Amino acid sequence: MRIAIDTMGGDQAPQVVIQGVEQARDQFQDLEFLLFGDEKQIKKYLQNSERVTIVPTQSVILGTDEPLKAIRHKKDSSMVMAAQAVKAGQADALFSLGNSGALLAAGIFIIGRLKNIMRPALMPTLPAMNSKQGFSFLDAGANAEVKINYLKQWAVMGFFYAREVKEIAHPRVGLLNNGTEYDKGDSLHKEAYQALSKLPDINFIGNVEATNLLEGVADVVITDGFTGNATLKAIEGTAKTIMSQLKKALLNNGLRPKVGALLAKPALASIKTTFDVAAYGGAVLMGVKAPVVKAHGAADARTVYYALVQLRMMYNKGMLQQVIEYFDQQPKK
Amino acid sequence: MRIAIDTMGGDQAPQVVIQGVEQARDQFQDLEFLLFGDEKQIKKYLQNSERVTIVPTQSVILGTDEPLKAIRHKKDSSMVMAAQAVKAGQADALFSLGNSGALLAAGIFIIGRLKNIMRPALMPTLPAMNSKQGFSFLDAGANAEVKINYLKQWAVMGFFYAREVKEIAHPRVGLLNNGTEYDKGDSLHKEAYQALSKLPDINFIGNVEATNLLEGVADVVITDGFTGNATLKAIEGTAKTIMSQLKKALLNNGLRPKVGALLAKPALASIKTTFDVAAYGGAVLMGVKAPVVKAHGAADARTVYYALVQLRMMYNKGMLQQVIEYFDQQPKK
Repeated sequence: MRIAIDTMGGDQAPQVVIQGVEQARDQFQDLEFLLFGDEKQIKKYLQNSERVTIVPTQSVILGTDEPLKAIRHKKDSSMVMAAQAVKAGQADALFSLGNSGALLAAGIFIIGRLKNIMRPALMPTLPAMNSKQGFSFLDAGANAEVKINYLKQWAVMGFFYAREVKEIAHPRVGLLNNGTEYDKGDSLHKEAYQALSKLPDINFIGNVEATNLLEGVADVVITDGFTGNATLKAIEGTAKTIMSQLKKALLNNGLRPKVGALLAKPALASIKTTFDVAAYGGAVLMGVKAPVVKAHGAADARTVYYALVQLRMMYNKGMLQQVIEYFDQQPKK
Repeated sequence: MRIAIDTMGGDQAPQVVIQGVEQARDQFQDLEFLLFGDEKQIKKYLQNSERVTIVPTQSVILGTDEPLKAIRHKKDSSMVMAAQAVKAGQADALFSLGNSGALLAAGIFIIGRLKNIMRPALMPTLPAMNSKQGFSFLDAGANAEVKINYLKQWAVMGFFYAREVKEIAHPRVGLLNNGTEYDKGDSLHKEAYQALSKLPDINFIGNVEATNLLEGVADVVITDGFTGNATLKAIEGTAKTIMSQLKKALLNNGLRPKVGALLAKPALASIKTTFDVAAYGGAVLMGVKAPVVKAHGAADARTVYYALVQLRMMYNKGMLQQVIEYFDQQPKK
């Protein structure tokens, strides 16, 4: 399996990207890499070039670039060139830490949508207190406007991902709604409930509320990209605010809490582990023709490593092929 | 000012309700109360009946009751009777800890919508790290389906509330969206941005993201009731999960973290204070003919007290009259 790497995106690129790649390369003999990026910089950090090919590129898509424009105009960028390599069959999967919108656009317009899939969705994994696998959340923001059929397709893809890649035997699929009863929500979500109930084989458990997501109320949570985006950001913002208040409280109140914090340090660190999103890799761009994963711009080498493991699982399990077959077998309307 | 109290709603009713009422009564000479509920139980807890009149009622609307049915069929309930008293002019405001949906229905169908207002919204105050006033968030879930004109009216009401009741000189009004740029969001939110930009005198600061809500990015945050509901629940769920993980980590890892927690206790308690929603009172049902506040079912006497202070401010500042006048002055279409 050959993975195309956009080596230049992210806050600490290319260093952390290369570290993660080398770690995965040393771990898995079946992986090869194409590193797209500034040749000089890559060579500076790359320790050995076994199963690694550098493809020099001239520009970088920045976080501030307008996604569609960037994809169209920065054709010599590490991200666009990496996506082109996947399209041309020179690589089987794509990894990037760069501009999310641009990667979304590259996935859809360069790599292309998966057969039968109307709209790809962004699917991160979030922590769940009752499972080391966390829960898959889609769409986390790729599609602000949705239709029932998109939600149905996301449910199917999320289900296959949880079963094949996360190896959860019977993933529970829930619909994010404003109450658990079947008749909750606006007209879209009422209709979505009915549509998901009728899908064969995806183990739909009904509506779930945002209050219970981190408890692990479902393994796969389906949502429109507008609500999904707000919910994801509310979770991130709340966690960040509480942790920073906690730190401030322990450090700015004299000696006693400082000593307390010191004694409690391993325990406090265990919370960090619980909320350690690095171990979940990155967000999958679900519904394009190849496995594409986007990690957070602030990701470290560990996150990169896990994201590559994630791509390898998607590829080895033939997950996308299973999605294609599922929809091929559905009666046409 | 006379406040109608649904004394029976909530987990610890009527005890905490009566304690809160007596505290407010002793503090403010201008307040009178009508306590609707089980006479025997109320008498058991009421310490003195100065400016307090008990109105015996026969039934209670439960948290599990279907709201509209409950309002129609439990006409002798403490909530319905209290709302009827407001409608009849026997009381100026309504307070309840009971079933949110039923209180919403009682507000709209018994007390009635405020002149010019199309849809009342539920407006809680949430903590903001940069302000003791927190931020007002509406609609938190009363309306799953919205129209641009609802959002406009909520922005105006939220602004007046923040200025008059919270006494923030120039409240910043933001629109919850999936990015801060003006052209972000689905068609509804794009249009909402334009509409709010054109409203005179409400200090619209543009789009805000859920990541930054608790930091206090705006004093008033406008949202559709579906996204608002998910966002509020995501904040609540995340805070609850982290705090419970924290507790678990400190207590279940042997002696060291326990001692640490003991030393750090006052510091940890200060976080609780930061996130102390009791001090914000309850959620206002914004857009009905009288001040109506709903506190959380698990609220304590302090929350009840603050909610009554909140109702008194709304009444004394003539906030609703100002809203009426604002819309009367707008050119009719």
